[in-house]
Amino acid sequence: MPSIMANHSLRGSLSHPLVLSLLFLCASDCLGGKILVAPVEGSHWVNMDILIRALHNQGHSITVVRSTKSWYIKADSPYYDSITVPVDKGFDEEFVKPILAQLMEVERGSSSLIHFLPLQLLMFSAMSSAHDITCHMVTSMFEDRALMQHLNESQFDLVLTDPSFGEGILLAHYLKLPLVYNVRWVTSSEGHFALAPSPLSYIPVTGSGLSDKMTFLQRVKNMLFYLLMQFQYRFLVKAQYQAVCDKYFEHKVDFLELVQAADLWLMRVDFVFEFPRPTMPNVVYMGGFQCKPAKPLPQDLEDFVQSSGEHGVILMSLGTFVSELPSDIAEDIAAAFAELPQKVIWRHVGERPSTLGNNTLLVKWMPQNDLLGHPKIRAFVAHGGTNGVQEAMYHGVPVLGIPLFFDQYDNLFRLKERGAAKLFSIAAINKNTFLQGLQEVLHEPSYRENMQRLSRLHRDQPMKPLDRAIFWIEFVMRHKGAAHLR
Amino acid sequence: MPSIMANHSLRGSLSHPLVLSLLFLCASDCLGGKILVAPVEGSHWVNMDILIRALHNQGHSITVVRSTKSWYIKADSPYYDSITVPVDKGFDEEFVKPILAQLMEVERGSSSLIHFLPLQLLMFSAMSSAHDITCHMVTSMFEDRALMQHLNESQFDLVLTDPSFGEGILLAHYLKLPLVYNVRWVTSSEGHFALAPSPLSYIPVTGSGLSDKMTFLQRVKNMLFYLLMQFQYRFLVKAQYQAVCDKYFEHKVDFLELVQAADLWLMRVDFVFEFPRPTMPNVVYMGGFQCKPAKPLPQDLEDFVQSSGEHGVILMSLGTFVSELPSDIAEDIAAAFAELPQKVIWRHVGERPSTLGNNTLLVKWMPQNDLLGHPKIRAFVAHGGTNGVQEAMYHGVPVLGIPLFFDQYDNLFRLKERGAAKLFSIAAINKNTFLQGLQEVLHEPSYRENMQRLSRLHRDQPMKPLDRAIFWIEFVMRHKGAAHLR
Repeated sequence: MPSIMANHSLRGSLSHPLVLSLLFLCASDCLGGKILVAPVEGSHWVNMDILIRALHNQGHSITVVRSTKSWYIKADSPYYDSITVPVDKGFDEEFVKPILAQLMEVERGSSSLIHFLPLQLLMFSAMSSAHDITCHMVTSMFEDRALMQHLNESQFDLVLTDPSFGEGILLAHYLKLPLVYNVRWVTSSEGHFALAPSPLSYIPVTGSGLSDKMTFLQRVKNMLFYLLMQFQYRFLVKAQYQAVCDKYFEHKVDFLELVQAADLWLMRVDFVFEFPRPTMPNVVYMGGFQCKPAKPLPQDLEDFVQSSGEHGVILMSLGTFVSELPSDIAEDIAAAFAELPQKVIWRHVGERPSTLGNNTLLVKWMPQNDLLGHPKIRAFVAHGGTNGVQEAMYHGVPVLGIPLFFDQYDNLFRLKERGAAKLFSIAAINKNTFLQGLQEVLHEPSYRENMQRLSRLHRDQPMKPLDRAIFWIEFVMRHKGAAHLR
Repeated sequence: MPSIMANHSLRGSLSHPLVLSLLFLCASDCLGGKILVAPVEGSHWVNMDILIRALHNQGHSITVVRSTKSWYIKADSPYYDSITVPVDKGFDEEFVKPILAQLMEVERGSSSLIHFLPLQLLMFSAMSSAHDITCHMVTSMFEDRALMQHLNESQFDLVLTDPSFGEGILLAHYLKLPLVYNVRWVTSSEGHFALAPSPLSYIPVTGSGLSDKMTFLQRVKNMLFYLLMQFQYRFLVKAQYQAVCDKYFEHKVDFLELVQAADLWLMRVDFVFEFPRPTMPNVVYMGGFQCKPAKPLPQDLEDFVQSSGEHGVILMSLGTFVSELPSDIAEDIAAAFAELPQKVIWRHVGERPSTLGNNTLLVKWMPQNDLLGHPKIRAFVAHGGTNGVQEAMYHGVPVLGIPLFFDQYDNLFRLKERGAAKLFSIAAINKNTFLQGLQEVLHEPSYRENMQRLSRLHRDQPMKPLDRAIFWIEFVMRHKGAAHLR
């Protein structure tokens, strides 16, 4: 039987008289709202964590719902309290890694149809299991009367959630609380598709690899992707959530309507990155909210960067999950790097490639944002995760993209369409192709110029995206929702 | 033959050395852009003028295109230079007043169908003439080679226009300049209908008097209004503009595409006022940009307001055009006012009603914003022009609405739907109904509470609407357009 395991790490330190009087001042002068956060694991948490820290700095108190199988989301934090729900299965390394390994295998296949079908089946099955895990976790919570009573009595001001999974949506409805999304995906699709009119003639389904200018055949392809997305939602996702709704909510409610009824959608894109499309009044764009000016590098890294002289430095990172590339590809990439006059910093965890040149520094972790903002950086070899793409845009560094899975191709494709990135499928990489591609990004000035233009456009906003997000979250608290915007 | 009559009132004063050095500082430090403004007459100019003053204060130089028949738009201003185009006919008092008088007659008819048809015919004919006047003015300009060469050589950064008439749209295309709208209406319809997906099932055609929640029959009515709007545009408006395009533009271009191609739409509504609806990335909402905190009243007016004691004051104004009501209605209204314990300030130009009470002060003009912001004001009797409605919302004063024509019914209806206004057709006014309506707005607290709620929502923005508008106009100047948003 699940039970509450609340983490009260903050509470002890709060009893100091000075802190108490500060808290009193805060309670009377600032908002000091109470926010219940239902996050999603992995890179989604990296984003949510930034938002949580900013909310904490604004004087709000945050409670994060996690599970005993939580992976990135820790129980102890100076920024939030946590509630840990006991579960049998979670989105942990055990769940994610084998799927990623399989995806990587499929990606390396060369024929596009042979490649496409197993990939979709694999994705379908993984998505279905993932939503199943979420529904189990929510059911555990709803069955735990003590927990639900505690949550009810806590008088939260709103639920903040990443709606790519439905946990926060169900919780907010149960607790009758205003609902704010930190969103790019909802359970059914890319976020906009669930909310705003989306004519398929000029709005590419994210995942289709299409742009906003499509030929007739591309529109057909787009329609097929849309149908696939609908199929996936209707037959593999919706039923599980609807069952929870039917069992625990007094009045019959359609789960998709709950998804659509959120007060505020803080969308993790902007229109420098995303193709222009219809939107709705309760969508606030906070694309690039995670970006910030570069801080000075640690001395050893700074020395390495400076040693590159006029040639500058290339960064390479394939994100959180794929530090380990198949060794033959890693060998090819290392050999290509070795032929360049540039220095290279490569985030790489697996075996050291035998072809590695003296110019290449392997690291287990790197201060990516600070490096991207360094004037010596010439290019970024990236997998196309949202964070990396946004940081590259913010700092104006052109990209050589190696998309692996999920939305990575689409993210990179948006840069390619603006002439700011060159793309490679992992199946097409060998030493020569990789070297040639890298040379092109380094020496054809349009890549850098276009990326710098995107950077100027992105930075030219009346308000920082993170400040805008915080303002609107507080707006929902002040007005107990944002019904007039939806 | 038309010719340039540029007004250079600013130039003389600019030769002073201090001014010159300030200008130099400005040229190196701030934007100092050059903006060509193609405004629309009447209350539209009142709005545009506020934007122009703000742009002037930001250091931009403004050139306004007007005609020899211009009415509200003066040739001399400390804020702008002007170019005066000689025309035979303009939107002056001569053109507008007889139409308004006829409209008023029709409005007073009681049967809704007898009322509707002549009203529409009258509107059609007036609109057609008005667009004809615009096209003649543009043709005059295009035929004047010296003028067009002067405009070309002036190297403006953008054209700012009110697109309810097409003059600025044609000028911007001719001069190949970025285009910014100060907009609620375009030549074809309410602005959003030309730009964003507008499902007629939940988006009421402005003019239909419908809300965003419609029964089946109301949806049918909405569709009919939409068709009427399309009919009007296609058969009475488009041809005139298309003829200008076909004659003067080298490459064939569809006029509606030019309308849609503006870089930025500064929309004179927000979603506290407007029903929620799909929008587009290049729409910036600046509803209420004309509102500002109240300044102290002149002493005599302050004394009159204070003399109202606990009962407070009622304001009445029917806008710029209708200072003169039919005398029988004015008598009824005056008699109703006379029975109230409140004091009344009434903007009234015609004959003094014989039934006028001691509590009622007739004025030819009043500082409306400063009065609406005064704590003694209890209610506002208004015709529903955008400026008055926005000011009432900003200051949280409930409204008794007497819509006369154009968008006035729809403006007031949006307040009524939020429980912040009561509406009367002018045909239904007599002493008793008016008195009863007024008592209701004064004594039923929900009117005031709802209007105060709208006021709180409207004011709770991260940035003032006028500042937002200026930011985005300057954005278009900095980036020579905003292609990525459309």
